[in-house]
Amino acid sequence: MAGSTDGRVTAAVLIIGDEILSGRTQDTNLRDIAKYLGVLGVDLAEARTVPDVLEEIVAALNALRERYDYVLTTGGIGPTHDDITADAVAAAFGVELIEHPEIIAMMTARWGGVELNAARRRMARVPVGGELVKNPVQGPPGFTIGNVFVLAGVPTIMRGMLEDVGWRLRSGTVTVARTVRVEGSGEGVIAAPLEAVAKAHPDMSLGSYPFFGDGVYGSNLVLRSRDQDELAQALEELVAALKDAGIDNIREVENA
Amino acid sequence: MAGSTDGRVTAAVLIIGDEILSGRTQDTNLRDIAKYLGVLGVDLAEARTVPDVLEEIVAALNALRERYDYVLTTGGIGPTHDDITADAVAAAFGVELIEHPEIIAMMTARWGGVELNAARRRMARVPVGGELVKNPVQGPPGFTIGNVFVLAGVPTIMRGMLEDVGWRLRSGTVTVARTVRVEGSGEGVIAAPLEAVAKAHPDMSLGSYPFFGDGVYGSNLVLRSRDQDELAQALEELVAALKDAGIDNIREVENA
Repeated sequence: MAGSTDGRVTAAVLIIGDEILSGRTQDTNLRDIAKYLGVLGVDLAEARTVPDVLEEIVAALNALRERYDYVLTTGGIGPTHDDITADAVAAAFGVELIEHPEIIAMMTARWGGVELNAARRRMARVPVGGELVKNPVQGPPGFTIGNVFVLAGVPTIMRGMLEDVGWRLRSGTVTVARTVRVEGSGEGVIAAPLEAVAKAHPDMSLGSYPFFGDGVYGSNLVLRSRDQDELAQALEELVAALKDAGIDNIREVENA
Repeated sequence: MAGSTDGRVTAAVLIIGDEILSGRTQDTNLRDIAKYLGVLGVDLAEARTVPDVLEEIVAALNALRERYDYVLTTGGIGPTHDDITADAVAAAFGVELIEHPEIIAMMTARWGGVELNAARRRMARVPVGGELVKNPVQGPPGFTIGNVFVLAGVPTIMRGMLEDVGWRLRSGTVTVARTVRVEGSGEGVIAAPLEAVAKAHPDMSLGSYPFFGDGVYGSNLVLRSRDQDELAQALEELVAALKDAGIDNIREVENA
Protein backbone atom coordinates (compact mmCIF):
# COMPACT_ATOMS: atom_id res chain seq x y z
CA MET A 1 0.00 0.00 0.00
CA ALA A 2 1.34 3.35 -1.06
CA GLY A 3 0.12 6.85 -0.39
CA SER A 4 0.83 6.84 3.32
CA THR A 5 4.47 7.94 3.45
CA ASP A 6 3.52 11.55 4.21
CA GLY A 7 1.00 10.68 6.91
CA ARG A 8 -1.97 10.95 4.60
CA VAL A 9 -4.40 8.09 4.37
CA THR A 10 -5.61 7.86 0.78
CA ALA A 11 -8.42 6.20 -1.10
CA ALA A 12 -9.63 5.87 -4.67
CA VAL A 13 -13.12 5.23 -6.00
CA LEU A 14 -13.75 2.92 -8.95
CA ILE A 15 -17.18 3.42 -10.48
CA ILE A 16 -18.22 0.45 -12.59
CA GLY A 17 -21.00 0.73 -15.12
CA ASP A 18 -22.01 1.40 -18.70
CA GLU A 19 -24.98 3.40 -17.38
CA ILE A 20 -22.68 6.11 -16.05
CA LEU A 21 -20.53 6.33 -19.19
CA SER A 22 -23.57 6.38 -21.49
CA GLY A 23 -24.98 9.35 -19.58
CA ARG A 24 -28.10 7.40 -18.63
CA THR A 25 -27.40 7.68 -14.91
CA GLN A 26 -26.02 10.61 -12.92
CA ASP A 27 -23.46 9.28 -10.47
CA THR A 28 -23.81 10.57 -6.92
CA ASN A 29 -21.80 7.89 -5.14
CA LEU A 30 -18.46 9.63 -5.66
CA ARG A 31 -19.56 12.67 -3.71
CA ASP A 32 -21.16 10.64 -0.93
CA ILE A 33 -18.03 8.54 -0.52
CA ALA A 34 -15.80 11.64 -0.59
CA LYS A 35 -17.78 13.23 2.22
CA TYR A 36 -17.90 10.03 4.25
CA LEU A 37 -14.14 9.50 3.95
CA GLY A 38 -13.43 13.17 4.66
CA VAL A 39 -14.94 12.89 8.12
CA LEU A 40 -12.58 9.97 8.81
CA GLY A 41 -9.55 11.90 7.63
CA VAL A 42 -9.16 9.70 4.56
CA ASP A 43 -8.36 11.68 1.40
CA LEU A 44 -10.11 10.69 -1.79
CA ALA A 45 -7.17 11.03 -4.17
CA GLU A 46 -8.52 9.76 -7.50
CA ALA A 47 -11.64 8.34 -9.10
CA ARG A 48 -12.13 6.31 -12.26
CA THR A 49 -15.23 5.25 -14.14
CA VAL A 50 -14.98 2.16 -16.33
CA PRO A 51 -17.46 0.15 -18.42
CA ASP A 52 -18.82 -3.33 -17.64
CA VAL A 53 -15.80 -4.97 -19.29
CA LEU A 54 -13.78 -7.45 -17.25
CA GLU A 55 -10.32 -6.47 -18.47
CA GLU A 56 -11.01 -2.77 -17.89
CA ILE A 57 -12.20 -3.33 -14.34
CA VAL A 58 -9.23 -5.57 -13.51
CA ALA A 59 -6.68 -3.13 -14.93
CA ALA A 60 -8.14 -0.11 -13.13
CA LEU A 61 -8.51 -2.00 -9.86
CA ASN A 62 -4.94 -3.22 -9.92
CA ALA A 63 -3.60 0.26 -10.72
CA LEU A 64 -5.59 1.86 -7.92
CA ARG A 65 -5.11 -0.72 -5.16
CA GLU A 66 -1.36 -0.63 -5.72
CA ARG A 67 -1.21 3.12 -5.40
CA TYR A 68 -3.68 4.08 -2.66
CA ASP A 69 -4.37 2.83 0.85
CA TYR A 70 -7.94 1.85 0.00
CA VAL A 71 -10.14 1.35 -3.06
CA LEU A 72 -13.94 1.48 -2.93
CA THR A 73 -15.82 0.16 -5.95
CA THR A 74 -19.48 0.82 -6.73
CA GLY A 75 -21.73 -1.09 -9.08
CA GLY A 76 -21.88 -4.43 -10.85
CA ILE A 77 -22.79 -6.68 -7.94
CA GLY A 78 -26.36 -7.60 -8.93
CA PRO A 79 -27.62 -10.93 -10.28
CA THR A 80 -27.62 -10.19 -14.00
CA HIS A 81 -25.05 -11.21 -16.63
CA ASP A 82 -23.63 -7.65 -16.83
CA ASP A 83 -22.77 -7.69 -13.09
CA ILE A 84 -19.16 -8.84 -13.23
CA THR A 85 -17.49 -6.94 -10.41
CA ALA A 86 -16.96 -10.07 -8.25
CA ASP A 87 -15.38 -11.86 -11.23
CA ALA A 88 -13.09 -8.87 -11.84
CA VAL A 89 -12.00 -8.55 -8.21
CA ALA A 90 -11.23 -12.28 -8.02
CA ALA A 91 -9.23 -12.02 -11.25
CA ALA A 92 -7.35 -8.95 -9.97
CA PHE A 93 -6.35 -10.80 -6.78
CA GLY A 94 -5.72 -14.08 -8.61
CA VAL A 95 -8.15 -16.06 -6.46
CA GLU A 96 -11.28 -18.14 -7.06
CA LEU A 97 -14.85 -17.15 -6.37
CA ILE A 98 -16.84 -19.21 -3.89
CA GLU A 99 -20.51 -19.13 -2.95
CA HIS A 100 -20.46 -17.65 0.53
CA PRO A 101 -22.54 -19.88 2.85
CA GLU A 102 -23.74 -16.91 4.92
CA ILE A 103 -25.15 -15.15 1.85
CA ILE A 104 -26.77 -18.36 0.61
CA ALA A 105 -28.39 -18.79 4.03
CA MET A 106 -29.61 -15.16 4.09
CA MET A 107 -31.09 -15.40 0.61
CA THR A 108 -32.67 -18.80 1.24
CA ALA A 109 -34.40 -17.36 4.31
CA ARG A 110 -35.43 -14.29 2.31
CA TRP A 111 -36.97 -16.41 -0.42
CA GLY A 112 -38.87 -18.65 1.99
CA GLY A 113 -36.60 -21.65 1.80
CA VAL A 114 -37.11 -22.38 -1.90
CA GLU A 115 -34.01 -23.36 -3.81
CA LEU A 116 -32.17 -20.32 -5.20
CA ASN A 117 -31.95 -19.97 -8.96
CA ALA A 118 -28.68 -19.39 -10.76
CA ALA A 119 -29.12 -15.61 -10.92
CA ARG A 120 -29.61 -15.28 -7.18
CA ARG A 121 -26.68 -17.62 -6.48
CA ARG A 122 -24.52 -15.23 -8.55
CA MET A 123 -24.97 -12.63 -5.81
CA ALA A 124 -23.53 -15.02 -3.21
CA ARG A 125 -20.15 -15.17 -4.97
CA VAL A 126 -17.21 -13.75 -3.00
CA PRO A 127 -13.49 -14.10 -3.74
CA VAL A 128 -11.66 -16.57 -1.52
CA GLY A 129 -10.34 -14.61 1.48
CA GLY A 130 -13.04 -11.95 1.23
CA GLU A 131 -15.15 -10.80 4.17
CA LEU A 132 -18.71 -9.55 3.98
CA VAL A 133 -19.71 -5.88 4.17
CA LYS A 134 -23.16 -5.57 5.73
CA ASN A 135 -26.08 -4.33 3.69
CA PRO A 136 -28.62 -2.75 6.05
CA VAL A 137 -30.94 -1.71 3.22
CA GLN A 138 -31.98 -4.46 0.85
CA GLY A 139 -30.42 -7.44 -0.87
CA PRO A 140 -27.14 -9.28 -0.39
CA PRO A 141 -24.04 -7.80 1.28
CA GLY A 142 -20.93 -6.35 -0.35
CA PHE A 143 -17.49 -7.68 0.45
CA THR A 144 -13.92 -6.65 1.14
CA ILE A 145 -10.64 -8.30 0.19
CA GLY A 146 -7.19 -6.86 0.77
CA ASN A 147 -7.57 -3.07 0.65
CA VAL A 148 -10.59 -3.19 -1.68
CA PHE A 149 -14.24 -2.66 -0.68
CA VAL A 150 -16.91 -3.80 -3.12
CA LEU A 151 -20.18 -1.89 -2.72
CA ALA A 152 -23.51 -1.66 -4.51
CA GLY A 153 -24.20 0.90 -7.21
CA VAL A 154 -27.69 1.88 -6.04
CA PRO A 155 -27.01 5.00 -3.93
CA THR A 156 -29.25 4.17 -0.95
CA ILE A 157 -27.70 0.71 -0.66
CA MET A 158 -24.18 2.04 -1.20
CA ARG A 159 -24.62 4.56 1.61
CA GLY A 160 -25.91 1.84 3.93
CA MET A 161 -22.91 -0.37 3.16
CA LEU A 162 -20.48 2.50 3.86
CA GLU A 163 -21.45 2.30 7.52
CA ASP A 164 -19.75 -1.10 7.67
CA VAL A 165 -16.63 0.23 5.90
CA GLY A 166 -15.51 3.16 8.06
CA TRP A 167 -14.53 1.19 11.17
CA ARG A 168 -12.19 -0.95 9.08
CA LEU A 169 -10.16 2.00 7.80
CA ARG A 170 -7.10 3.52 9.39
CA SER A 171 -8.12 7.11 10.17
CA GLY A 172 -6.05 10.11 9.24
CA THR A 173 -6.07 13.63 10.58
CA VAL A 174 -9.28 15.23 9.45
CA THR A 175 -9.01 18.04 6.93
CA VAL A 176 -11.17 20.98 7.93
CA ALA A 177 -12.50 23.49 5.41
CA ARG A 178 -13.56 27.09 5.91
CA THR A 179 -15.14 29.19 3.20
CA VAL A 180 -14.93 32.93 2.57
CA ARG A 181 -17.58 34.29 0.22
CA VAL A 182 -16.69 37.32 -1.88
CA GLU A 183 -19.50 39.08 -3.72
CA GLY A 184 -19.18 41.68 -6.44
CA SER A 185 -15.56 40.92 -7.28
CA GLY A 186 -14.37 38.51 -9.94
CA GLU A 187 -11.54 36.02 -9.76
CA GLY A 188 -9.41 38.41 -11.82
CA VAL A 189 -8.96 40.66 -8.78
CA ILE A 190 -9.21 37.94 -6.13
CA ALA A 191 -6.40 35.87 -7.62
CA ALA A 192 -3.41 37.92 -6.43
CA PRO A 193 -4.31 38.15 -2.70
CA LEU A 194 -5.42 34.51 -2.75
CA GLU A 195 -2.16 33.37 -4.28
CA ALA A 196 -0.11 35.35 -1.76
CA VAL A 197 -1.80 33.51 1.10
CA ALA A 198 -1.53 30.16 -0.70
CA LYS A 199 2.23 30.68 -1.12
CA ALA A 200 2.61 31.44 2.58
CA HIS A 201 0.84 28.16 3.43
CA PRO A 202 2.18 25.53 1.04
CA ASP A 203 0.70 22.61 3.02
CA MET A 204 -2.80 23.99 2.73
CA SER A 205 -5.21 23.80 -0.18
CA LEU A 206 -6.81 27.12 -1.23
CA GLY A 207 -9.36 27.06 -4.03
CA SER A 208 -11.55 29.62 -5.72
CA TYR A 209 -15.00 28.59 -6.96
CA PRO A 210 -16.71 31.38 -8.88
CA PHE A 211 -20.47 31.81 -9.03
CA PHE A 212 -22.74 34.05 -11.05
CA GLY A 213 -26.40 34.36 -11.91
CA ASP A 214 -29.47 35.85 -10.20
CA GLY A 215 -27.87 39.26 -10.42
CA VAL A 216 -24.95 38.38 -8.17
CA TYR A 217 -21.44 37.21 -8.91
CA GLY A 218 -18.29 36.50 -6.99
CA SER A 219 -16.35 33.52 -5.70
CA ASN A 220 -16.28 31.14 -2.76
CA LEU A 221 -12.72 30.84 -1.48
CA VAL A 222 -12.25 27.50 0.25
CA LEU A 223 -9.31 27.00 2.60
CA ARG A 224 -8.54 23.43 3.66
CA SER A 225 -6.02 22.25 6.25
CA ARG A 226 -5.34 19.47 8.72
CA ASP A 227 -4.08 22.11 11.18
CA GLN A 228 -6.94 24.16 12.61
CA ASP A 229 -4.64 26.84 14.03
CA GLU A 230 -2.96 27.36 10.69
CA LEU A 231 -6.40 27.39 9.05
CA ALA A 232 -7.62 30.19 11.34
CA GLN A 233 -4.40 32.13 10.77
CA ALA A 234 -4.61 31.78 6.97
CA LEU A 235 -8.24 32.83 6.98
CA GLU A 236 -7.34 36.00 8.85
CA GLU A 237 -4.49 36.71 6.44
CA LEU A 238 -6.77 36.17 3.46
CA VAL A 239 -9.43 38.55 4.71
CA ALA A 240 -6.73 41.18 5.36
CA ALA A 241 -5.15 40.65 1.92
CA LEU A 242 -8.54 40.93 0.18
CA LYS A 243 -9.27 44.18 2.04
CA ASP A 244 -5.85 45.54 1.11
CA ALA A 245 -6.79 44.84 -2.51
CA GLY A 246 -9.91 46.96 -2.10
CA ILE A 247 -12.30 44.01 -1.84
CA ASP A 248 -14.62 44.34 1.11
CA ASN A 249 -17.83 42.44 0.41
CA ILE A 250 -16.43 39.43 2.25
CA ARG A 251 -17.95 37.11 4.81
CA GLU A 252 -17.30 33.68 6.17
CA VAL A 253 -20.06 31.22 5.24
CA GLU A 254 -20.89 27.63 6.04
CA ASN A 255 -19.14 25.29 3.64
CA ALA A 256 -21.44 24.94 0.66
CA MET B 1 -4.80 7.38 -31.54
CA ALA B 2 -6.18 4.04 -30.52
CA GLY B 3 -9.70 2.84 -29.94
CA SER B 4 -10.81 3.04 -33.53
CA THR B 5 -9.72 -0.33 -34.89
CA ASP B 6 -13.19 -1.82 -34.46
CA GLY B 7 -15.00 1.14 -36.02
CA ARG B 8 -15.82 2.73 -32.70
CA VAL B 9 -14.90 6.32 -32.07
CA THR B 10 -13.91 6.67 -28.42
CA ALA B 11 -13.43 9.44 -25.93
CA ALA B 12 -12.39 9.86 -22.31
CA VAL B 13 -13.24 12.59 -19.84
CA LEU B 14 -10.67 13.96 -17.39
CA ILE B 15 -12.25 15.89 -14.53
CA ILE B 16 -9.74 18.14 -12.81
CA GLY B 17 -10.40 19.52 -9.38
CA ASP B 18 -9.99 19.15 -5.63
CA GLU B 19 -13.58 20.32 -5.21
CA ILE B 20 -14.91 17.13 -6.80
CA LEU B 21 -12.65 14.79 -4.82
CA SER B 22 -13.38 16.56 -1.53
CA GLY B 23 -17.11 16.07 -2.08
CA ARG B 24 -17.72 19.81 -2.05
CA THR B 25 -19.06 19.85 -5.62
CA GLN B 26 -21.31 17.33 -7.35
CA ASP B 27 -19.95 16.77 -10.86
CA THR B 28 -22.54 16.89 -13.63
CA ASN B 29 -20.20 17.47 -16.56
CA LEU B 30 -19.50 13.78 -17.11
CA ARG B 31 -23.12 13.02 -17.82
CA ASP B 32 -23.60 16.08 -20.03
CA ILE B 33 -20.54 15.18 -22.09
CA ALA B 34 -21.61 11.52 -22.32
CA LYS B 35 -25.00 12.52 -23.72
CA TYR B 36 -23.52 15.06 -26.10
CA LEU B 37 -20.99 12.56 -27.46
CA GLY B 38 -23.61 9.82 -27.66
CA VAL B 39 -25.61 11.79 -30.20
CA LEU B 40 -22.47 12.06 -32.33
CA GLY B 41 -21.81 8.33 -32.13
CA VAL B 42 -18.72 8.86 -29.98
CA ASP B 43 -18.46 6.36 -27.10
CA LEU B 44 -17.37 7.66 -23.74
CA ALA B 45 -15.08 4.81 -22.75
CA GLU B 46 -13.53 5.98 -19.48
CA ALA B 47 -13.48 8.88 -17.05
CA ARG B 48 -10.97 9.93 -14.44
CA THR B 49 -11.08 12.53 -11.70
CA VAL B 50 -7.75 13.91 -10.47
CA PRO B 51 -6.75 16.63 -7.98
CA ASP B 52 -5.21 20.03 -8.81
CA VAL B 53 -1.72 18.52 -8.89
CA LEU B 54 0.38 19.02 -12.02
CA GLU B 55 2.00 15.57 -12.15
CA GLU B 56 -1.35 13.84 -11.64
CA ILE B 57 -3.01 15.77 -14.43
CA VAL B 58 -0.09 15.18 -16.83
CA ALA B 59 0.03 11.44 -16.11
CA ALA B 60 -3.71 10.93 -16.52
CA LEU B 61 -3.84 13.06 -19.67
CA ASN B 62 -1.00 11.18 -21.32
CA ALA B 63 -2.54 7.80 -20.46
CA LEU B 64 -5.94 8.79 -21.85
CA ARG B 65 -4.87 10.64 -25.02
CA GLU B 66 -2.72 7.69 -26.01
CA ARG B 67 -5.55 5.23 -25.62
CA TYR B 68 -8.69 6.99 -26.87
CA ASP B 69 -9.55 8.99 -29.96
CA TYR B 70 -10.39 12.10 -27.95
CA VAL B 71 -9.97 13.44 -24.44
CA LEU B 72 -12.14 16.20 -22.98
CA THR B 73 -10.95 17.86 -19.79
CA THR B 74 -13.07 19.98 -17.47
CA GLY B 75 -11.90 22.41 -14.82
CA GLY B 76 -8.80 24.33 -13.83
CA ILE B 77 -8.79 27.04 -16.51
CA GLY B 78 -9.62 30.06 -14.36
CA PRO B 79 -7.27 32.87 -13.27
CA THR B 80 -6.29 31.64 -9.81
CA HIS B 81 -3.11 29.87 -8.72
CA ASP B 82 -4.90 26.51 -8.42
CA ASP B 83 -5.92 26.64 -12.10
CA ILE B 84 -3.09 24.69 -13.68
CA THR B 85 -4.74 22.78 -16.51
CA ALA B 86 -3.03 24.81 -19.26
CA ASP B 87 0.35 24.21 -17.61
CA ALA B 88 -0.39 20.48 -17.39
CA VAL B 89 -1.53 20.19 -21.02
CA ALA B 90 1.57 22.04 -22.23
CA ALA B 91 3.76 19.75 -20.12
CA ALA B 92 1.98 16.64 -21.42
CA PHE B 93 2.58 17.71 -25.03
CA GLY B 94 6.09 18.99 -24.29
CA VAL B 95 5.39 22.49 -25.63
CA GLU B 96 5.50 26.01 -24.20
CA LEU B 97 2.57 28.16 -23.18
CA ILE B 98 2.02 31.45 -24.99
CA GLU B 99 -0.37 34.29 -24.31
CA HIS B 100 -2.86 33.99 -27.15
CA PRO B 101 -3.28 37.41 -28.80
CA GLU B 102 -6.95 36.80 -29.59
CA ILE B 103 -7.76 36.11 -25.93
CA ILE B 104 -5.74 39.12 -24.79
CA ALA B 105 -7.69 41.27 -27.27
CA MET B 106 -11.05 39.86 -26.11
CA MET B 107 -10.25 40.42 -22.48
CA THR B 108 -8.84 43.90 -23.04
CA ALA B 109 -12.08 44.85 -24.78
CA ARG B 110 -14.08 43.24 -21.98
CA TRP B 111 -12.23 45.21 -19.32
CA GLY B 112 -12.57 48.53 -21.13
CA GLY B 113 -9.06 48.77 -22.48
CA VAL B 114 -7.28 48.87 -19.12
CA GLU B 115 -4.12 46.83 -18.87
CA LEU B 116 -4.84 43.25 -17.79
CA ASN B 117 -3.47 42.12 -14.46
CA ALA B 118 -1.39 38.97 -14.08
CA ALA B 119 -4.36 36.84 -13.01
CA ARG B 120 -6.39 37.73 -16.09
CA ARG B 121 -3.36 37.19 -18.36
CA ARG B 122 -3.14 33.65 -16.92
CA MET B 123 -6.40 32.87 -18.67
CA ALA B 124 -4.91 33.83 -22.04
CA ARG B 125 -2.30 31.09 -21.89
CA VAL B 126 -2.58 28.39 -24.57
CA PRO B 127 -0.02 25.71 -25.47
CA VAL B 128 1.89 26.37 -28.70
CA GLY B 129 -0.08 24.73 -31.51
CA GLY B 130 -3.38 24.99 -29.69
CA GLU B 131 -6.58 26.37 -31.22
CA LEU B 132 -9.33 28.17 -29.37
CA VAL B 133 -12.66 26.60 -28.41
CA LYS B 134 -15.37 29.27 -28.33
CA ASN B 135 -17.02 30.22 -25.07
CA PRO B 136 -20.51 31.55 -25.84
CA VAL B 137 -21.37 32.05 -22.17
CA GLN B 138 -18.91 34.12 -20.18
CA GLY B 139 -15.18 34.53 -19.85
CA PRO B 140 -12.27 33.37 -21.98
CA PRO B 141 -12.37 30.46 -24.45
CA GLY B 142 -11.14 26.91 -23.99
CA PHE B 143 -8.62 25.37 -26.35
CA THR B 144 -7.77 22.20 -28.22
CA ILE B 145 -4.40 20.65 -29.02
CA GLY B 146 -3.86 17.27 -30.63
CA ASN B 147 -6.81 15.10 -29.64
CA VAL B 148 -7.39 16.97 -26.37
CA PHE B 149 -10.15 19.52 -25.67
CA VAL B 150 -9.75 21.74 -22.63
CA LEU B 151 -13.07 23.03 -21.29
CA ALA B 152 -14.29 25.00 -18.29
CA GLY B 153 -15.46 23.32 -15.10
CA VAL B 154 -18.53 25.52 -14.53
CA PRO B 155 -21.33 23.42 -16.06
CA THR B 156 -23.13 26.19 -17.98
CA ILE B 157 -19.85 27.33 -19.56
CA MET B 158 -18.74 23.77 -20.24
CA ARG B 159 -21.98 23.03 -22.09
CA GLY B 160 -21.60 26.18 -24.15
CA MET B 161 -18.05 25.23 -25.13
CA LEU B 162 -19.15 21.72 -26.17
CA GLU B 163 -21.01 23.30 -29.08
CA ASP B 164 -17.65 24.24 -30.58
CA VAL B 165 -16.24 20.75 -30.01
CA GLY B 166 -18.69 18.44 -31.81
CA TRP B 167 -17.98 19.59 -35.37
CA ARG B 168 -14.29 18.83 -34.88
CA LEU B 169 -14.87 15.17 -33.98
CA ARG B 170 -15.01 12.24 -36.34
CA SER B 171 -18.52 10.85 -35.92
CA GLY B 172 -19.26 7.20 -35.32
CA THR B 173 -22.41 5.20 -35.85
CA VAL B 174 -24.84 6.35 -33.21
CA THR B 175 -25.77 3.84 -30.53
CA VAL B 176 -29.52 3.76 -29.98
CA ALA B 177 -31.06 2.65 -26.69
CA ARG B 178 -34.51 1.21 -26.00
CA THR B 179 -35.80 0.50 -22.53
CA VAL B 180 -38.21 -2.18 -21.32
CA ARG B 181 -39.66 -1.55 -17.88
CA VAL B 182 -40.58 -4.58 -15.78
CA GLU B 183 -42.65 -4.00 -12.64
CA GLY B 184 -43.30 -6.43 -9.81
CA SER B 185 -40.46 -8.80 -10.72
CA GLY B 186 -36.95 -8.64 -9.31
CA GLU B 187 -33.65 -9.13 -11.10
CA GLY B 188 -33.46 -12.64 -9.66
CA VAL B 189 -36.13 -13.80 -12.11
CA ILE B 190 -35.33 -11.36 -14.91
CA ALA B 191 -31.67 -12.40 -15.11
CA ALA B 192 -32.08 -15.69 -17.00
CA PRO B 193 -34.25 -14.45 -19.90
CA LEU B 194 -32.13 -11.29 -20.13
CA GLU B 195 -28.92 -13.27 -20.31
CA ALA B 196 -30.32 -15.57 -22.99
CA VAL B 197 -31.03 -12.58 -25.23
CA ALA B 198 -27.66 -10.99 -24.39
CA LYS B 199 -25.87 -14.18 -25.44
CA ALA B 200 -27.75 -14.24 -28.75
CA HIS B 201 -26.61 -10.64 -29.45
CA PRO B 202 -22.97 -10.42 -28.37
CA ASP B 203 -22.40 -7.07 -30.12
CA MET B 204 -25.17 -5.40 -28.17
CA SER B 205 -25.14 -4.08 -24.62
CA LEU B 206 -28.00 -5.21 -22.38
CA GLY B 207 -28.18 -3.85 -18.86
CA SER B 208 -30.57 -4.20 -15.96
CA TYR B 209 -31.15 -1.23 -13.64
CA PRO B 210 -33.35 -2.14 -10.67
CA PHE B 211 -35.61 0.34 -8.94
CA PHE B 212 -37.67 0.20 -5.77
CA GLY B 213 -39.52 2.51 -3.43
CA ASP B 214 -42.94 4.19 -3.42
CA GLY B 215 -44.53 0.75 -3.21
CA VAL B 216 -43.25 -0.40 -6.59
CA TYR B 217 -40.19 -2.38 -7.58
CA GLY B 218 -38.75 -3.88 -10.71
CA SER B 219 -36.04 -3.15 -13.25
CA ASN B 220 -35.42 -1.11 -16.37
CA LEU B 221 -33.83 -3.27 -19.01
CA VAL B 222 -31.80 -1.14 -21.40
CA LEU B 223 -30.82 -2.52 -24.81
CA ARG B 224 -28.18 -0.60 -26.77
CA SER B 225 -27.03 -1.20 -30.31
CA ARG B 226 -25.60 0.56 -33.35
CA ASP B 227 -27.88 -1.60 -35.54
CA GLN B 228 -31.51 -0.51 -35.25
CA ASP B 229 -32.85 -3.65 -36.91
CA GLU B 230 -30.99 -5.87 -34.51
CA LEU B 231 -32.17 -3.67 -31.65
CA ALA B 232 -35.83 -4.12 -32.65
CA GLN B 233 -35.32 -7.85 -33.06
CA ALA B 234 -33.62 -8.23 -29.68
CA LEU B 235 -36.35 -6.20 -27.99
CA GLU B 236 -38.99 -8.54 -29.42
CA GLU B 237 -36.99 -11.58 -28.26
CA LEU B 238 -36.59 -10.13 -24.80
CA VAL B 239 -40.31 -9.46 -24.37
CA ALA B 240 -41.06 -13.02 -25.53
CA ALA B 241 -38.44 -14.51 -23.20
CA LEU B 242 -39.74 -12.54 -20.22
CA LYS B 243 -43.30 -13.71 -20.95
CA ASP B 244 -42.10 -17.32 -21.24
CA ALA B 245 -40.62 -16.88 -17.75
CA GLY B 246 -44.03 -15.84 -16.43
CA ILE B 247 -43.23 -12.12 -16.29
CA ASP B 248 -45.92 -10.03 -17.91
CA ASN B 249 -45.93 -6.57 -16.35
CA ILE B 250 -43.71 -5.32 -19.15
CA ARG B 251 -43.82 -2.19 -21.25
CA GLU B 252 -41.48 -0.21 -23.39
CA VAL B 253 -40.77 3.24 -21.95
CA GLU B 254 -38.88 6.32 -23.02
CA ASN B 255 -35.23 6.07 -22.04
CA ALA B 256 -34.99 7.41 -18.51
